Amino acid sequence: MNGPESISAIRAAREAIAPWIIETPVWRWDTPLLRERLGWARPGAVWLKLELLQRTGSFKARGALAVMRQLDADARSRGVTAISAGNHAIAVAYAASALGTSAKVVMPRSANPGRVAACRRHGAEVVLVDDIHAGFVAVEQIAADEGRTFVHPFEGPQIALATATLGLELSEQLDGALDAVLIPIGGGGLCAGAAAAIKLARPDCKIFGIEPVGADSMHLSFAAGSPQAIPSVRSIADSLGAPHAAPYSFDLCRAHVDELVHVDDDQLRAAMAALFQDAKLAVEPAAAASTAALLGPLRERLAGQRVALIVCGSNIDVASFTTLLAQRGPTTDALLTGDTPL
Amino acid sequence: MNGPESISAIRAAREAIAPWIIETPVWRWDTPLLRERLGWARPGAVWLKLELLQRTGSFKARGALAVMRQLDADARSRGVTAISAGNHAIAVAYAASALGTSAKVVMPRSANPGRVAACRRHGAEVVLVDDIHAGFVAVEQIAADEGRTFVHPFEGPQIALATATLGLELSEQLDGALDAVLIPIGGGGLCAGAAAAIKLARPDCKIFGIEPVGADSMHLSFAAGSPQAIPSVRSIADSLGAPHAAPYSFDLCRAHVDELVHVDDDQLRAAMAALFQDAKLAVEPAAAASTAALLGPLRERLAGQRVALIVCGSNIDVASFTTLLAQRGPTTDALLTGDTPL
Repeated sequence: MNGPESISAIRAAREAIAPWIIETPVWRWDTPLLRERLGWARPGAVWLKLELLQRTGSFKARGALAVMRQLDADARSRGVTAISAGNHAIAVAYAASALGTSAKVVMPRSANPGRVAACRRHGAEVVLVDDIHAGFVAVEQIAADEGRTFVHPFEGPQIALATATLGLELSEQLDGALDAVLIPIGGGGLCAGAAAAIKLARPDCKIFGIEPVGADSMHLSFAAGSPQAIPSVRSIADSLGAPHAAPYSFDLCRAHVDELVHVDDDQLRAAMAALFQDAKLAVEPAAAASTAALLGPLRERLAGQRVALIVCGSNIDVASFTTLLAQRGPTTDALLTGDTPL
Repeated sequence: MNGPESISAIRAAREAIAPWIIETPVWRWDTPLLRERLGWARPGAVWLKLELLQRTGSFKARGALAVMRQLDADARSRGVTAISAGNHAIAVAYAASALGTSAKVVMPRSANPGRVAACRRHGAEVVLVDDIHAGFVAVEQIAADEGRTFVHPFEGPQIALATATLGLELSEQLDGALDAVLIPIGGGGLCAGAAAAIKLARPDCKIFGIEPVGADSMHLSFAAGSPQAIPSVRSIADSLGAPHAAPYSFDLCRAHVDELVHVDDDQLRAAMAALFQDAKLAVEPAAAASTAALLGPLRERLAGQRVALIVCGSNIDVASFTTLLAQRGPTTDALLTGDTPL
């Protein structure tokens, strides 16, 4: 099976999932506050790819649909299973409902209740487990006992083809007029496909993969030259907290990512506040990662360039959002009051 | 001077302000939560017109630009003045900066500090006054002393032409496939122009004007048959708190609005929560008015129809947003937990 190896393959994947997917808007972020924060001598241009407005609230819907639409009638009758603390579970639940199959998703008891409710609203059965390790046991058992197909959250050629549809869409929406794209990395499935597509469409566009401090398995993997696991995940960006990288997406990221960049929790909070203030978006930390990288470590490097930030998805409740921002440090404080530069 | 009397006049107005305005996205709102809330037997379709992504964060930019671009060189050299607690002031500040003139805006001391800061970021001078009455005195004095042109927040043919560009844009984005449009009413300038344009493009589309309980000058005016003032404004939707209606926009609203509808503070909060959860938007109460009307008083009436909700604009800080939602009543509680129908 082939992944995102050509524009035509990506176009075919896009057509295949088109009935259940929307073309999410891109929005030119051009405000006095941003200009102040960036302090660029030449104006440049910053675009937000609003993939959080995708069905299910994240890009994960693309991958779940791409994988599950290939199941034959027999597999569809048995259904699918998945393990996820949120966005992937919701996407699998949605895809199952869209494609007329059934989903039994395993989620840790600590998962946000709103995300659990979202899965159920899409008609999925939710199995709550004590932690992610118990979850892997449970999901294997479900697959073995019920013949359900396991849908991986980020690995494999179909997932990469699906996230490549996002990259191609972005490139086409901006007529390829892009110098750099900033892509959050959890497991690496989004970055693998989106980066491949963007490099196919515009080889000289730079790709930056953004990882949170405390959830940087791709950094470790790049350094080691092979997919690595991290001992524990410590970041507020829970949706980027993949415990390990995996071979297929690792290889694509290695081939197409120009540089990896870290963002810390306080930078994520400041970016959440900036998106709230300027783009009227209430996002979970993962969706703020690309913005955090632009406002922080990449600010000077990208001065005057045409930059797209992938806002990859968000499912968060009001209470969690406000609690996260209430824990803010000095970077966020400065931004929220708007009085001092970031 | 002519207002939005023909599609060609509206197109001309759109071209005139196009360099400084963006075509804001429309987003199909189609989630299990919304379907649950609506409980419609036939599916229908709900669209959000995301005008809060307009430059300055609200539709007000269109009107300020339309009025101010007509100033001659002499008037531009003297600059403009305006009175507003927020979105109009920011729009005038932006338009002044875009058109190369200067703005001195009068704002009540109680205005949100973020909105005051936004005006200053666009380069406006801000004059803070004790209350809105002192503000009217101040702005008249500024106009008299400095020869600055007063830019009205909602009244006049140019303002109506400008808000008509929003209505036409929406109608074109949806290929006219619309049964009803829900438009928030403060002073009535948005509704006057947008309704006129939509009726020109699609005469059988129903227009609902949405007013908050406690700020319903258009309800009073419709009942009296002439523009009326309200003694005081009592609504969390501060941006819809115009103290009176005015003749030009009143006449257009009378001609094109099929029905006026009230929403109360708790319905506004519930709508804010719904937009947060499903559309990932953090909005001030005014921007939630159309959603509140759909989820509340118009829910059954519009069952199965194709409905557009104008999300007119939002400039709110995190603290105010969370404080507002923390004061929620039972309607919002039900929606936030997601367990019981609205």
